[in-house]
Amino acid sequence: MKFNCLIAQSGGPTAAINSTLAGIYSAACRNASIGKVYGGLNGIEGVINGRVINLGSILSEYGNLFVLKITPSSFLGSCRYKLKSCAENEDDYKKIFDIFDKYNIKYFFYIGGNDSMDTILKLKEYQDKNPHGVMLIGVPKTIDNDLMCVDHTPGFGSAAKYIATTVKEIAYDTAVYNMDSIVVVEIMGRNAGWLTLSAGLARDNSGRTLADLIYIPENPFDYDKLISDIKNVQKEKRQMVIAVSEGIRFSDGKLVAESEQKDAFGHGQLGGAAKTVSEYIKEQLGVKVRAVEINVSQRCAAHCLSLTDINESFKIGEVAVDAAAQGLSGVMVTNNRKEGNEYRLEYSYSDIASIANMEKTVPENYMNVEKNNISQDGLNYLIPLVKGEVKLLHKDGVPMYLNIKDFI
Amino acid sequence: MKFNCLIAQSGGPTAAINSTLAGIYSAACRNASIGKVYGGLNGIEGVINGRVINLGSILSEYGNLFVLKITPSSFLGSCRYKLKSCAENEDDYKKIFDIFDKYNIKYFFYIGGNDSMDTILKLKEYQDKNPHGVMLIGVPKTIDNDLMCVDHTPGFGSAAKYIATTVKEIAYDTAVYNMDSIVVVEIMGRNAGWLTLSAGLARDNSGRTLADLIYIPENPFDYDKLISDIKNVQKEKRQMVIAVSEGIRFSDGKLVAESEQKDAFGHGQLGGAAKTVSEYIKEQLGVKVRAVEINVSQRCAAHCLSLTDINESFKIGEVAVDAAAQGLSGVMVTNNRKEGNEYRLEYSYSDIASIANMEKTVPENYMNVEKNNISQDGLNYLIPLVKGEVKLLHKDGVPMYLNIKDFI
Repeated sequence: MKFNCLIAQSGGPTAAINSTLAGIYSAACRNASIGKVYGGLNGIEGVINGRVINLGSILSEYGNLFVLKITPSSFLGSCRYKLKSCAENEDDYKKIFDIFDKYNIKYFFYIGGNDSMDTILKLKEYQDKNPHGVMLIGVPKTIDNDLMCVDHTPGFGSAAKYIATTVKEIAYDTAVYNMDSIVVVEIMGRNAGWLTLSAGLARDNSGRTLADLIYIPENPFDYDKLISDIKNVQKEKRQMVIAVSEGIRFSDGKLVAESEQKDAFGHGQLGGAAKTVSEYIKEQLGVKVRAVEINVSQRCAAHCLSLTDINESFKIGEVAVDAAAQGLSGVMVTNNRKEGNEYRLEYSYSDIASIANMEKTVPENYMNVEKNNISQDGLNYLIPLVKGEVKLLHKDGVPMYLNIKDFI
Repeated sequence: MKFNCLIAQSGGPTAAINSTLAGIYSAACRNASIGKVYGGLNGIEGVINGRVINLGSILSEYGNLFVLKITPSSFLGSCRYKLKSCAENEDDYKKIFDIFDKYNIKYFFYIGGNDSMDTILKLKEYQDKNPHGVMLIGVPKTIDNDLMCVDHTPGFGSAAKYIATTVKEIAYDTAVYNMDSIVVVEIMGRNAGWLTLSAGLARDNSGRTLADLIYIPENPFDYDKLISDIKNVQKEKRQMVIAVSEGIRFSDGKLVAESEQKDAFGHGQLGGAAKTVSEYIKEQLGVKVRAVEINVSQRCAAHCLSLTDINESFKIGEVAVDAAAQGLSGVMVTNNRKEGNEYRLEYSYSDIASIANMEKTVPENYMNVEKNNISQDGLNYLIPLVKGEVKLLHKDGVPMYLNIKDFI
C-alpha cells in the first residue's frame, strides 16, 4: 500500500526555497512507495486549517516544474506560526495529525529555518507520546545561513550573489563624482553576519575590495573604531562603501538600531542601522553619506540566482525524500563540504534537537584581524556558493515565475 | 589633417551610459577624419581642470570595449557642475576651449541628461561669439526618460527592466503570508513618473498586474483617494504592492516628502515618500506595511540590463559621431519610433536649445482613467524598451565590469 507525502514551506522566503520544493516533488514522484504529493498552504498554520492541495495536478503540467525551480519566494505560501508545546496545548497537534490521517500522509517535509525546525521538533515530541508513524523531516532553507550542522543553508548562495553584485554596482555608482562620499549599505542579519560578509565578494578584476569596511553582529560595534577605519580607507580613496548588518550592536549588547516591535517569535524588528550609522558619519566627518537598505530583494531576487545554490537546493530536497523513505524521522537533512581543495558536498542527516532554536554565527577567521573586512578564509568559504548563473525565461522583458494563484 | 575628439559623461550614472561611450569610441575609430579619441574625467569639471586621458590606450586592449559596453555607472566619472553663463563669467569657457586647442579637439561629445544639455547649450552660445570650430554634440542618457525630442532616453530601458523585475519579485515576496499586508515601493522621479510607470510592467503570466497601485508626480496625490484605492484592491487580494515616485506631490504642489537640502542645480533632495505614505496607511488601516526604496540600484544594476537599451545606447553614440562628422554643432542626437506596429527606431538631431532645461513628463493616456495604474498605451510604449537580456562575464560568481582605476 502506498502512503502520501505532504510538503510545506515556512519562515522568510528565499530565492531557492522552491527549488527544494521541486526537488522533493521530483524524488517523491520517482519513489515507488510514495503515492500522492500534497502541498500545505501557508506552512503549518495552513495544515492546521486543512489547507492542503494536490501538487501533482500543478507540477505534472509541462514546464511548471522547471519554472518552479527558479521562482522566488514560497510557492506554497509561508507562516510565522509558533506551535505551543504539546504539554501546554494539544489542539494544534490533534488538528495536524488529523490532517495527516485524512490525507494518508506518512511523510511530512517542512522546508524552513530555525523556527521551522522548532516546529518539526515539537511535532516529533508529540508523536513520541502519540505514535502516528509519520516521518517528520526538516529541510533547511534560509538566506541567513545560520543553521547548525550544515556547511551552508540552501538559499544563502543566491542571496550572497545578489548582495555581492549589488554592492559592486553601488561601489561603481558612488565612485563617479570627484568628491568624498560614503555609502552605508544595510544587509539582513540579526545575530549572524553571513549576508553582510558576502558583501566582501564585491571585488574588482584586480581583486581590490569594493566593500571597503564590513561590520557584522559577531563583533562589538564601536563608533570611534568606525571613524578611525574610515580615515584609514580615505588615505587610499575618496569614495567608499561600508556594509553593515541590521543587527550590529555595541559591546554592551545594545543594538545600533532597533524598534520596539516584536514578531511572533519575540524577535525585535530591526532596520535603520545604515541610516543611524550614516547620520553619525555625516555629523563627525561632514562628508556626503548615503544610506542604502538592500531590503527584501536580497531574499527574492531570482533574477540573480546562484546556479550552485539552485542545484544544491534541489538536491537537498531529493535527499530529504531518501531520508523519509529510509524511515528517518525528527531529522533535518544536512550538507557538508568534503575535505580537499575542490568544492564538493556530501549530504547527511542530523537530529533536529541539535539544530532547532540555535544559530550558527560567522567564525572569527572569516574576518580579518582588524574585524572590519572579510579574510581569505572567508572568501574561500563563500566563493563556491555563488558560482554559476541561471538563465531565466522572460515574457515582455520581465522574468516569468510560477504563481500559485494561477492554480487555486 | 586629422582632428581629435573628446568625450565626457555627466549627471547621474546609468547602466547604459558606457555603452554610448563605447559606441562613440567605435565610430570615431572608424571615421577617417578623426584622429585620437580622448576622454574627459568627471565631466566638464574635469575638462576645465585639464583631466584628459587617451581612451585609445585603454579601449584598444582586447575585450575592454565589450566589457565597457556592459559596465554600469560613468566609466569616465561624472560631475554636477553648472557652468555660469558666459556673460557672467568667461573663465571656465576659456579654460575649456584652451583644452580643446591643446588636444586639437574638433569634436566634443557630452553624454548626459537635462543639465548636461544645458552645458552644451552654453558652450554653443560662447562659441557663437568666440568661434573655435568645435562640433558640440549632446548625447542623451538618463534613467529618468524626461528629455524632450526623443522617443525615450538611453539608460531608461535598463532601469525600467530592473524596476519591473524587482517589483515583481517583491510582489512574490509579500504574497507569502496569509495576512493583510502592503509594500510601498519608492522609485526615482522628481517631476516625471516614467520609472514608476515601469513598475506596471510587473505582471503575472496571465497578465495580472503585480504593481496594484501606481502614483506618479504628474497627477496630484491625495491621501483619501489612496485609501479608497487600497480598499478597492483589498476586495480582490490581501497583499498588495504600491509604487510611488519620490516626487509625488499634493494638488497644492507640495511634495509628500522633501528635505530642505538642495543640489548644485537647486533641486531639492528627495527621498522618504514610501516611508511617509506607508506610515499614513498603517495609521489609517492598521495593516502591516513595509516601505522599500529601490534606491541607486535602479540606475546601476547592470546585472539586469535590457539588451534593447544597450544596443540602442551604443547606436546613438555612433550616430553622434556621424552628426559631428557632418559638421553639426549645438545639437543633441534623438531617436524616434517609426510608425507601424513593429517597434523600430530612426535617429535624427534636434537643436539643443529646444531640449536643455525642459522635462518631458508621462502623457495622460499612459495611465488609466483612475490615474492609479498603467494603461495599455503605457504598456505598449514600455514593453519594447525592456526586451532582451544581456549575458555578462563573471568571475567567482560576480559580474566583471571595467574600472578606470585599473588604467589611470
